[in-house]
Amino acid sequence: MPNNEDTFLALDIGGTNVKSGLIGRGGEIITFESFPTSEGGGVETLIALIVRKLTELWNGAGKGRKPKALAIGAPGWIRRREGVVVMAPNLAGWKDLPITRIMSEALDIPALLENDANLYALGEWLQGAGKGCDNQITLTLGTGVGGGLILEGRLWEGSFTSAAEVGHIPLGNVDRICGCGRKGCLESVASASGMAALAREWIAEGRGTLYGGDPKDLDTLAMLDLAGRGDPMSLAVFRQAGEAIGYMLAGVFNLLSLEAAVIGGGGSGAFDYMAPGILDILSRHIVTASMNQIRVVKGALEDKAPIIGAAALLTSEGF
Amino acid sequence: MPNNEDTFLALDIGGTNVKSGLIGRGGEIITFESFPTSEGGGVETLIALIVRKLTELWNGAGKGRKPKALAIGAPGWIRRREGVVVMAPNLAGWKDLPITRIMSEALDIPALLENDANLYALGEWLQGAGKGCDNQITLTLGTGVGGGLILEGRLWEGSFTSAAEVGHIPLGNVDRICGCGRKGCLESVASASGMAALAREWIAEGRGTLYGGDPKDLDTLAMLDLAGRGDPMSLAVFRQAGEAIGYMLAGVFNLLSLEAAVIGGGGSGAFDYMAPGILDILSRHIVTASMNQIRVVKGALEDKAPIIGAAALLTSEGF
Repeated sequence: MPNNEDTFLALDIGGTNVKSGLIGRGGEIITFESFPTSEGGGVETLIALIVRKLTELWNGAGKGRKPKALAIGAPGWIRRREGVVVMAPNLAGWKDLPITRIMSEALDIPALLENDANLYALGEWLQGAGKGCDNQITLTLGTGVGGGLILEGRLWEGSFTSAAEVGHIPLGNVDRICGCGRKGCLESVASASGMAALAREWIAEGRGTLYGGDPKDLDTLAMLDLAGRGDPMSLAVFRQAGEAIGYMLAGVFNLLSLEAAVIGGGGSGAFDYMAPGILDILSRHIVTASMNQIRVVKGALEDKAPIIGAAALLTSEGF
Repeated sequence: MPNNEDTFLALDIGGTNVKSGLIGRGGEIITFESFPTSEGGGVETLIALIVRKLTELWNGAGKGRKPKALAIGAPGWIRRREGVVVMAPNLAGWKDLPITRIMSEALDIPALLENDANLYALGEWLQGAGKGCDNQITLTLGTGVGGGLILEGRLWEGSFTSAAEVGHIPLGNVDRICGCGRKGCLESVASASGMAALAREWIAEGRGTLYGGDPKDLDTLAMLDLAGRGDPMSLAVFRQAGEAIGYMLAGVFNLLSLEAAVIGGGGSGAFDYMAPGILDILSRHIVTASMNQIRVVKGALEDKAPIIGAAALLTSEGF
């Protein structure tokens, strides 16, 4: 039976969940699956589990016809062209792993590797909140802050295939030490872990909050709930994160004259609380457009974004 | 006599000087001229003078054969595609001026308009300090801070044809009010006027300096001379400007994964004094490359850069 030229496989390997999908050329999701990464156990057993899940995808919804190609999204430091995950802090044991070759041989279809935030950005551009804007940036607010840049409808890779490291753009008015050891990175205040750390500092300073639990247990989900009840701590932290994003975006818009910024990832659940800070700072500093010419919006696709983005990657590479 | 397909005219209209040249397709300068803008008098008389100078260029060195096309560089706010200078603060009376149509009709050759800093960047890419690097940014340190961004060997224009407004990228650790009225713009500390203002503040605070003249007369040329004699004020201001540039470049490199940054314009005379600040901050914050993979260099072409860049613009537009 020949391969099905009209379907692709997509895989997004995260530290918490592994998402996979059988998709159409335009990113239409035929089947979507997600399982906890911890189910996989070690590196080899996780890969074996992924191979089994992907095979089931095309044997089930794919009616036994192999998809044309596979796109793999991975976090951490990757060598995109060689298809190697060099190091992924959130994936224990993933070091110099030639994931593209492994999956391609196991499934007998071509495979490509891409940074997970880049796939996310491609998804939001193709079918999500950034649809129709060919010059745009997507931020993914998670444990860290990732990003993907679309220029003229294509993913921007840069000279050293590591562009859109927006989480480590330094902000002169941020004094915090980032997980990377540098001072003032956007990630240190706008990531989920950064926002939780800011909230814990607020509590340690004895400032008022509705939160009564152990500071160690604070996360952005709890803060989102508290913000809805008017908690001054959560509102202030979301505002601060928003302003930091606003400063970063002002620089990016003034440099590139973009049309849109999409805020995605788990932390974007607090978008409505962050937006006033983002827009306040951005509107004060943008010189390349008026605010009504551009869009700053919450992502629309959540964890399906990288799966949908896989179609954009594969078609742009000629599959 | 047919037009000479192998030559172009280039014009760079500045607030201080008007530069023009007859150039080859690769940016080779056949003739270069410069005269003070003030010689032109009002708008109409300046344009008439420019037309005469350009005509002389091809009647002289061009041996009477018309060049194929003209590229015009202008400061301020332009509508590139329509060929209109909307407003140029340093060119009295230039308002909604359809300069492309005027010059094209007067000379009877096609003409294109471009931002002067963009032409400068194209020149440094084609024949200057950024030669061979297809992903690079050029800063022009003058009365303001301009810039031009080259991506994949082409000028990046962006969605609203006003990209690379690097002078107005906000820096959170800069407290000064920019000429544009915004707070914290790079331009407020790294432009020639910004550096002079920082020096005047230093004097007003009663801090030590070798400068004995009237603070009003201070400019970057005087500071450059003073720095060579170890003046603590000039050295500190150049360092501060360098650090601000370093913060901005760190964000730009982390966003775009570029290969090179070229520092040009009159203020780049102080490059050797600014470089330690630039490199110190950049090396601390860059995550997309190691410092030995990238170049941060002084521009090589000075006021000939926009003239040479005209060739890159015209050939990229099919002339």
